[in-house]
Amino acid sequence: MAFPPTPVSLRVKPGPNRLAVTGIGNAMLDIITRDSNEVFRDLGLVKASMTLIGEDQLSRFYEAMGPTIEMSGGSVANSIAGIAALGGTCGYIGKVAADEFGERFTHDLASLGVELDLAIARSDEGATGRCHVFITDDAQRTMATYLGASNQLRVEDVKEKLIARSEITYVEGYLFDLPPAKEAIRKVVNFAHEHDSMVALSLSDMFCVDRHRRDFLDLVTSDVDVLLANETEILALFQVATLEQAFEALAELGVLAAITRGAQGADVATMTGVVRVPAHEVEHVVDQNGAGDMFASGFLYGLALGADPVEAAELGSLCAGEIITHLGARPEGDLEDLALEAGLL
Amino acid sequence: MAFPPTPVSLRVKPGPNRLAVTGIGNAMLDIITRDSNEVFRDLGLVKASMTLIGEDQLSRFYEAMGPTIEMSGGSVANSIAGIAALGGTCGYIGKVAADEFGERFTHDLASLGVELDLAIARSDEGATGRCHVFITDDAQRTMATYLGASNQLRVEDVKEKLIARSEITYVEGYLFDLPPAKEAIRKVVNFAHEHDSMVALSLSDMFCVDRHRRDFLDLVTSDVDVLLANETEILALFQVATLEQAFEALAELGVLAAITRGAQGADVATMTGVVRVPAHEVEHVVDQNGAGDMFASGFLYGLALGADPVEAAELGSLCAGEIITHLGARPEGDLEDLALEAGLL
Repeated sequence: MAFPPTPVSLRVKPGPNRLAVTGIGNAMLDIITRDSNEVFRDLGLVKASMTLIGEDQLSRFYEAMGPTIEMSGGSVANSIAGIAALGGTCGYIGKVAADEFGERFTHDLASLGVELDLAIARSDEGATGRCHVFITDDAQRTMATYLGASNQLRVEDVKEKLIARSEITYVEGYLFDLPPAKEAIRKVVNFAHEHDSMVALSLSDMFCVDRHRRDFLDLVTSDVDVLLANETEILALFQVATLEQAFEALAELGVLAAITRGAQGADVATMTGVVRVPAHEVEHVVDQNGAGDMFASGFLYGLALGADPVEAAELGSLCAGEIITHLGARPEGDLEDLALEAGLL
Repeated sequence: MAFPPTPVSLRVKPGPNRLAVTGIGNAMLDIITRDSNEVFRDLGLVKASMTLIGEDQLSRFYEAMGPTIEMSGGSVANSIAGIAALGGTCGYIGKVAADEFGERFTHDLASLGVELDLAIARSDEGATGRCHVFITDDAQRTMATYLGASNQLRVEDVKEKLIARSEITYVEGYLFDLPPAKEAIRKVVNFAHEHDSMVALSLSDMFCVDRHRRDFLDLVTSDVDVLLANETEILALFQVATLEQAFEALAELGVLAAITRGAQGADVATMTGVVRVPAHEVEHVVDQNGAGDMFASGFLYGLALGADPVEAAELGSLCAGEIITHLGARPEGDLEDLALEAGLL
């Protein structure tokens, strides 16, 4: 461990019928390939970022890939799977199609005990979303995403029931990529406010922030309690050059934020200042895919249990350390056992 | 490394339009889950073995599984993927259905440059085969296999073209599980003899050997040049109690054999005696799934290049060492680079 175990402060598990966190995001399957030769460049992708592609491009991308591994993905869905692996109760709201990928996505969360409120897309709303992930030898991942049904989430698809029972409601920034989802986010946030559920937001991707800066800023300014982002995303949001400037902007807004910084760990920005939580040391980084999502699992679950933000970030760091040792963005091991061993739960 | 690099003896890559190895086997997708609680026992499975299940049981097995990872599998197909990852030219003969799993199986071998001769099942011959793999904390895998289309391989599905160009023809023992496949195996072996292709056979599974001992013995006695098996399989074949007795039986038949023995390495039984090749040391064994298949990749590719059997087994050991460090039975890394670094290619 990179830091000594922190004594576990007063932690309170959510009561009966309560949920620690409900997430709302793009439901999708990951199609993962090793790409030592950086073939993704021939497809016009920018390294380490996410590019949106249409249904007509699916076969071109798949054919360009080497052998693949498939598993459920979606940034906020990954975080929810992580919280379930930590032993937390949680919910998930999203949209899939009535196809095989949709069934698999549903199975993988349901088998972890996650309560699901999944809308099923009409046949004209596309297939279940999928993300083509190219892992290079430096463990970076470059993504091409077909949103499909996932981003056809409409206002009428968002129901109150899971949000009303949740300590935290966690919203995926990627949802901003289609207009109907924006209205749905508004409805989610209103439900959360009504039921005293904290609102957490992931900025998802710097290009996504560029596409929807105004909407993101409005939401962060008026509705968000907890913000999760990496360095490039938070700089893009405030259009500033340094993290110090970003922290000032966050302090003015009174938003608790965790800024993940890869091997350097995470900066937790609270009302009283910024604390650096080191990354959990691992022997060999295989795939950074999911590191931010798993950090969010530990961070949000810690907050939901009443841990202070720095302790919560230490739990986040532990979870991120597990995910980068293997391919894929969903945890393989029992995160609860890991956290108990480390004295973080 | 557990042994010093061996000087590379005279190795000859197959000439233009030649193939090192063509495999024939059960084409299937693996559906892999971590099973810390040994849930597979409730499904009636025997630990570390393979059980056949019917189409009507698919949903029951899938629903009992935790979150899954999907990737192409099939024992001999895995070995062929491993040879391709070693830089070898190879072919594969099998049968899939015209469904999504069939497409993915095809994609994954084709993207490695494997020449395919895949028969497509009629709609009444079942879906593409799939294997439910339960990985326990001791890295053992317990399997429930739906053969589906894969084992509807008929005599008319087997063509001469790939076998005629191959140094070695590699047959999967699992194919014996349906009568039409037995006739197809006969045809494969005849083609191999006509074209001076060595015949290699995998015994696949001890229960499979029990089901078809007579057929296996006939084939080994009269047609097989190279036999691949683990300890339990070879004892089951000859119905003997010790490996020494099995080696005597092999010597009488004049068959070259490699017997994989897990952490103890592999015993190579040649005309001149038995040599133990140690297992390649790895830090942490995650999943033993595919270890035998990858050993076969290195062993058969080495033989196809003209290496002596012990050198070939060292290459097999190196490949097996890669696969057990991660989930799944297909290689993630570049085996050719690994082998070149180790001085084995």
